[in-house]
Amino acid sequence: MSSLNEIAGYLKTRDKYVILTHIYPDGDTLGSAYALCRALRRLDKQANVLIHGTLAGKFAYLEKDMEKQDFEYETVVTVDIASPSLMGEFKEEFEDKIDVCIDHHASNDITASMRYVNADAASNCENIYYLIRLLGTEIDPQLADCIYTGMCTDTGCFRFTNVTPDTMRIAADLIELGCRNAEINRVMFDTKSLARINIEREVLNTLRFYADNKIAVVYTTRDMEKRTGAKDEDMDGLAIIPRQIEGVSAGITVKEKGDNYYRISVRTNGDHNASWICSKLGGGGHFAAAGCSVQGSLEEAIEKIVHAAVDELSL
Amino acid sequence: MSSLNEIAGYLKTRDKYVILTHIYPDGDTLGSAYALCRALRRLDKQANVLIHGTLAGKFAYLEKDMEKQDFEYETVVTVDIASPSLMGEFKEEFEDKIDVCIDHHASNDITASMRYVNADAASNCENIYYLIRLLGTEIDPQLADCIYTGMCTDTGCFRFTNVTPDTMRIAADLIELGCRNAEINRVMFDTKSLARINIEREVLNTLRFYADNKIAVVYTTRDMEKRTGAKDEDMDGLAIIPRQIEGVSAGITVKEKGDNYYRISVRTNGDHNASWICSKLGGGGHFAAAGCSVQGSLEEAIEKIVHAAVDELSL
Repeated sequence: MSSLNEIAGYLKTRDKYVILTHIYPDGDTLGSAYALCRALRRLDKQANVLIHGTLAGKFAYLEKDMEKQDFEYETVVTVDIASPSLMGEFKEEFEDKIDVCIDHHASNDITASMRYVNADAASNCENIYYLIRLLGTEIDPQLADCIYTGMCTDTGCFRFTNVTPDTMRIAADLIELGCRNAEINRVMFDTKSLARINIEREVLNTLRFYADNKIAVVYTTRDMEKRTGAKDEDMDGLAIIPRQIEGVSAGITVKEKGDNYYRISVRTNGDHNASWICSKLGGGGHFAAAGCSVQGSLEEAIEKIVHAAVDELSL
Repeated sequence: MSSLNEIAGYLKTRDKYVILTHIYPDGDTLGSAYALCRALRRLDKQANVLIHGTLAGKFAYLEKDMEKQDFEYETVVTVDIASPSLMGEFKEEFEDKIDVCIDHHASNDITASMRYVNADAASNCENIYYLIRLLGTEIDPQLADCIYTGMCTDTGCFRFTNVTPDTMRIAADLIELGCRNAEINRVMFDTKSLARINIEREVLNTLRFYADNKIAVVYTTRDMEKRTGAKDEDMDGLAIIPRQIEGVSAGITVKEKGDNYYRISVRTNGDHNASWICSKLGGGGHFAAAGCSVQGSLEEAIEKIVHAAVDELSL
């Protein structure tokens, strides 16, 4: 592994950058990429960000006042990409040409000439912040916005266990540098599409309890998605709803994916093992968040996962 | 106004403290009080916190391992109390005996021998943090939890416009000192009572739009409260629901308070003046959050406030 200092030195000697982001782009991969691109351009380098699809409207400010530059690339950088499988449409062209990989996923298996993977960073934007400090370029408010975006989105606005003292101190620096923290937070955390509001309402209407209210179950059907117009991004995070309820140890979300085919998410609070529950149905994941897939009717799917959860709760 | 340094010096010379909190106690008044009480006890002072009612279960950790001490008080401190009217049941006995007032509300009109009011602090707990640093006592994890509680609850977990670089740096220090930040965040921001979930569902079922979807209205009735068992604390923050919807400029929540009597909350996004809207019906408040009361039927109340909001949106 290379140090950030070595990477900063290397980046200064190179030019004509493409900065690659991962599929299903989120605030951290986009914030990392646009921050680094802005910093490199300030060093009079040519640099472009490559993303999958078009930039979502809520992220438009990241590329404000940036024009796509016209050049043949010479240097390839990946940001927040944990694995070649997450390179999507860029994989074929770029997989074997990566000069620098900067990431915060412990599982990172990208092959690159220089790699910096710091899994203690709550977001990859923290790594990018330190890198830009080493590059020595000014951090103007728009660049600060880019870094802040990855930091707040990967931590649930500084809510999760991954937050460290460093996270808070970098955010302090960015606010001092003029980032629009409150406005970004409002867009990321206090704005819901009408489809999201409507699917939430329908999800709440399906709420059931088992095992003395320790297990809460909700479901979504393809009909509900059609009726509310909810797209994938509107469905994000629905799985935390049953787990949020006071006294619930295991929150279960059952999502109809096809005919007699369901995808199940399990979220637990503290003491119970979601991965164990899902492994009973051939799935897996983390201790507090796991998933599996089930064939059968909706009621059969619910019965199977509730049964597994009851088993875990009685361990 | 006194400096925090003067107040710290004074507190060291005194003993037998009562620390007063405001009515409808929130995380900031409670966090401030228990933090200061713990610090004073570490200085071998006698000190108690006085609160209205009993400590809500979610705040129980604030007083963990603290016994009520038995003494005749000699020194009275208020924390986060902006006005005598917010002293509730403590007003009669203590109003004219306040030795030290520590607050962060610009409007503070408490009479006290020594006053420190710093309206730049996002939470009063920030003031308490600096005060305890000046007192020179150790900040153990439990004391850090108390300070963190006021900081996260008064900023919506570091989401709002009141957050400053200082806010983030103090939070960084507290995490370093061992506060259970992620666990406190989960309790404060990721836990909902079943009554809350049910009233949210009923509220979403009342959603209507006006003025090209720029105005969103929801309402609650006493029947809905009875049916769901929602208490005051379960109703907190419902007013942000209509404003959160993408594209909505003014979110309006109409709450049945009595026969033909409604309390209305208006929340706006950025460009529109909630206070102006509510002033048309005899109310007022801040630019982005205001309220008023209306007599009449539910439909009349909605018609009146929507009319005022349409007027403002066309200004």
